[in-house]
Amino acid sequence: MDIESGSIDLKSNTATISKHNFLWGWFKALFTKLMNNVTDFTDKVKKLGKDDPRRITHSIKVGVTLALVSLLYYFSPVYGGFGSSTMWAILTVVVVFEFSVGATLGKGLNRAIATFLAGALGVGAHHLATLAGTEGEPILLGLFVFLLAAVASFSRFFPGIKARYDYGVLIFILTFSLVSVSGYREDKIIRLALHRFSTIIIGGLSCVVISIFVFPVWAGEDLHKLISLNIEKLGDFLQAFGGEYFENVDKDGLIPKDDKKTFLHLHGYKTILNSKTAEESFANFASWEPPHGRFGYRHPWKQYLKIGASTRHCAYRIEALSNCINNSQTQPLEFKKIVQKGCMEMSIESGKALKELSIAIKTMKHIPDSVLTHLKNSISAADNLKSSLRTATLENANIFDLIPAAKVTTLLIEVIGCIGNIVDSVNELSHLAKFKGAETTATLLDKPKPQLHREETLKSITVETTNHGNATHAVITVCALSTALESGILEDPLIL
Amino acid sequence: MDIESGSIDLKSNTATISKHNFLWGWFKALFTKLMNNVTDFTDKVKKLGKDDPRRITHSIKVGVTLALVSLLYYFSPVYGGFGSSTMWAILTVVVVFEFSVGATLGKGLNRAIATFLAGALGVGAHHLATLAGTEGEPILLGLFVFLLAAVASFSRFFPGIKARYDYGVLIFILTFSLVSVSGYREDKIIRLALHRFSTIIIGGLSCVVISIFVFPVWAGEDLHKLISLNIEKLGDFLQAFGGEYFENVDKDGLIPKDDKKTFLHLHGYKTILNSKTAEESFANFASWEPPHGRFGYRHPWKQYLKIGASTRHCAYRIEALSNCINNSQTQPLEFKKIVQKGCMEMSIESGKALKELSIAIKTMKHIPDSVLTHLKNSISAADNLKSSLRTATLENANIFDLIPAAKVTTLLIEVIGCIGNIVDSVNELSHLAKFKGAETTATLLDKPKPQLHREETLKSITVETTNHGNATHAVITVCALSTALESGILEDPLIL
Repeated sequence: MDIESGSIDLKSNTATISKHNFLWGWFKALFTKLMNNVTDFTDKVKKLGKDDPRRITHSIKVGVTLALVSLLYYFSPVYGGFGSSTMWAILTVVVVFEFSVGATLGKGLNRAIATFLAGALGVGAHHLATLAGTEGEPILLGLFVFLLAAVASFSRFFPGIKARYDYGVLIFILTFSLVSVSGYREDKIIRLALHRFSTIIIGGLSCVVISIFVFPVWAGEDLHKLISLNIEKLGDFLQAFGGEYFENVDKDGLIPKDDKKTFLHLHGYKTILNSKTAEESFANFASWEPPHGRFGYRHPWKQYLKIGASTRHCAYRIEALSNCINNSQTQPLEFKKIVQKGCMEMSIESGKALKELSIAIKTMKHIPDSVLTHLKNSISAADNLKSSLRTATLENANIFDLIPAAKVTTLLIEVIGCIGNIVDSVNELSHLAKFKGAETTATLLDKPKPQLHREETLKSITVETTNHGNATHAVITVCALSTALESGILEDPLIL
Repeated sequence: MDIESGSIDLKSNTATISKHNFLWGWFKALFTKLMNNVTDFTDKVKKLGKDDPRRITHSIKVGVTLALVSLLYYFSPVYGGFGSSTMWAILTVVVVFEFSVGATLGKGLNRAIATFLAGALGVGAHHLATLAGTEGEPILLGLFVFLLAAVASFSRFFPGIKARYDYGVLIFILTFSLVSVSGYREDKIIRLALHRFSTIIIGGLSCVVISIFVFPVWAGEDLHKLISLNIEKLGDFLQAFGGEYFENVDKDGLIPKDDKKTFLHLHGYKTILNSKTAEESFANFASWEPPHGRFGYRHPWKQYLKIGASTRHCAYRIEALSNCINNSQTQPLEFKKIVQKGCMEMSIESGKALKELSIAIKTMKHIPDSVLTHLKNSISAADNLKSSLRTATLENANIFDLIPAAKVTTLLIEVIGCIGNIVDSVNELSHLAKFKGAETTATLLDKPKPQLHREETLKSITVETTNHGNATHAVITVCALSTALESGILEDPLIL
């Protein structure tokens, strides 16, 4: 019994301890989980702020503007006359203040102009409706609102209107309805409309002024940087590709995963595949922006979209090349060695061309000779490779074994063709935007004719270095294949 | 003189006539130009309406809703109590009514919940500020507005919040500022907040009810259709590709341009390259929608994004294939003939597989056996081609000449691998969404392990037809290459 009671005591003791332990463990787990969540969250916040510190300044700017406009309300002399219309200033600040100057200006102008037009039209509609008598007035007003709202809503489906004036159309419908209908109740409709308009102007102007003069974020600058960064990413890939495909694979044939930088270089291009939307919205915002910094009046923002499109086309080819890396080790080494030198040179030289092109865009200088030299090098590497392929013996190999490395070769040649297109569109930008050094080179660009479309793929770039006084200017002639053949740069080229 | 005067008369006559003619011509040109512009515009409007007639019904729905809400204002018994708060109903309708039910519901819920929360918080802030006395009140209110606006603006940079709650955050800032600051002027702040909230609910509910019950446009249905259409487009290309590449080129080597349908089939896939944004916004809207039609509660909308991603990956390969067509005639015919049969079969069979897969999605049925049969056919065509490539003699050709057709072969094999991924993700959808016939097949999907990534490219699909009672269910096993090798389907495959 003693033993038994002892054992029972022991048990209840254990039970109490385990209950304590359980509760303690539960609290501990809960606390740890909570702390983890908090640290996760703060890490995310820190990362968002670190990735782009302008996000923090933007948030502060919005806060300050809104607090200022709200507090102006406090001072009766300024705002007393406007009464409840004051809220429109607050409303405008909240809705109009966007991240970039262009977006803010675009929304502000849309709002101001739409309010003004719709207000005037609303007053007119209201006046017209009163002529119809007390019975007819609401019917006529309802009809006006219906017609205007339906037509304006439909207009929002036009892609051009959707892109630039969507917000304006919304505000147009809103103001028209409010003015024409609220006029039904109040006789002081015009005074009310003017009050509202002036508070909207106050709100909008505060946003525009603060967004332009306090740490401005220019959408145009962002677009410029994005385009040059994307070209740099393509260059990074091409510079890293040769090495990855032909050399730096470990004995299992896998890319060493610890080399984080190489991994980034090889996968950075992936964001380009889906960058169209971002580029378009940047270009749209940029077109609202006044001249600033290095970007003058009527800077050719649309040309950036063209460069973006040819960069993306190049990225599609790079995506195909990138697939080859994963399978680089499963092929016979003999043939790989035949193409190795040529392919390495093609990829490294074209990579260098792209990176120097990216620097030229970044610094807003005309395409330097070195870009064309590197491109020329990669083209002659392609030519040499083709010749060696023509003379290569095939005794120990069958077609089957040759294909993978042959595919890399053809894809690299296609990529060089795409780079020609990129250089072409950057060159156009350089002239349109009057980049440094672009003034004296007025030539350029015999575009390949449509019927030559078979031959468009592979473009060649002829470099003619002409001397104007001391400055050396490169005249780029992007010529269709036929021209290239005539000029003897590419003899009997391989069109893939 | 007579002669002279006669000649002068003639001249002045001609001058008058030519002046008339000039004026007449000018008017005529102006009129023609005006008429052309008008017809251009009406054509555009007609095209917009024809492309999607729901645009017209949507515009009418917006007009009717807005006119109704505006006119309700006329009836004092309903709206009299709310005074100037009525405008919030109109404002809500204008801003919340979107094209699809999901977008409307999302915005409506965002607006209602944000208004409620921010209103409550605003009242609290106002109460707290009054405790600080007349001097401290504006300072404290300004501080509150600043803090809330800054934090909320920053939160909009979180991608998750940006995608789903962006509008809610805006309304939150707006309502908080309006309530806390306007409370400074009016003592009846709570009554005002309630009025505003109820008018917003009235406006929001009108939108939601009309958008759901009158010709509803479901974003989910659109997403479903888009995904199945994109797969169909890939199928169209593959079915047309073989013929275009190997046969239907005219004697100049150009694709006959008059064949509009073929052109469409060959270029329809291009929209897929940039469809990511559209798919994501559809999926976001769809997640707000209640069960409707064929789509039940918690329909797996996110899975559509996975299918979309694998479809897009396939489209990148197709883009590379599409480049080959332009150069199809510049290669030696001998080698082309070796690969012709195999490539034709691969492209046609894989095209058929995709088109039947697209129909299966459209009709919400489980992947039929025929898809797998076609896919199996294309895989065995690839195998046969590989064998014939291994035994082909190369006496009359050099490597150089073989590359183009070899490239098409490898790209087609890659495409078949991608189709395996698409089938894989559609199969997952079929189970998640309980498509007809998917109930009894619980197996599936030994995912390729990460360390096998070299071998992921080419996946094979094993078809095991099992009989459950009368119904025949296809068990799809998407297996990594190693497994496929073991099962003897692909012997010694060519990994490209």
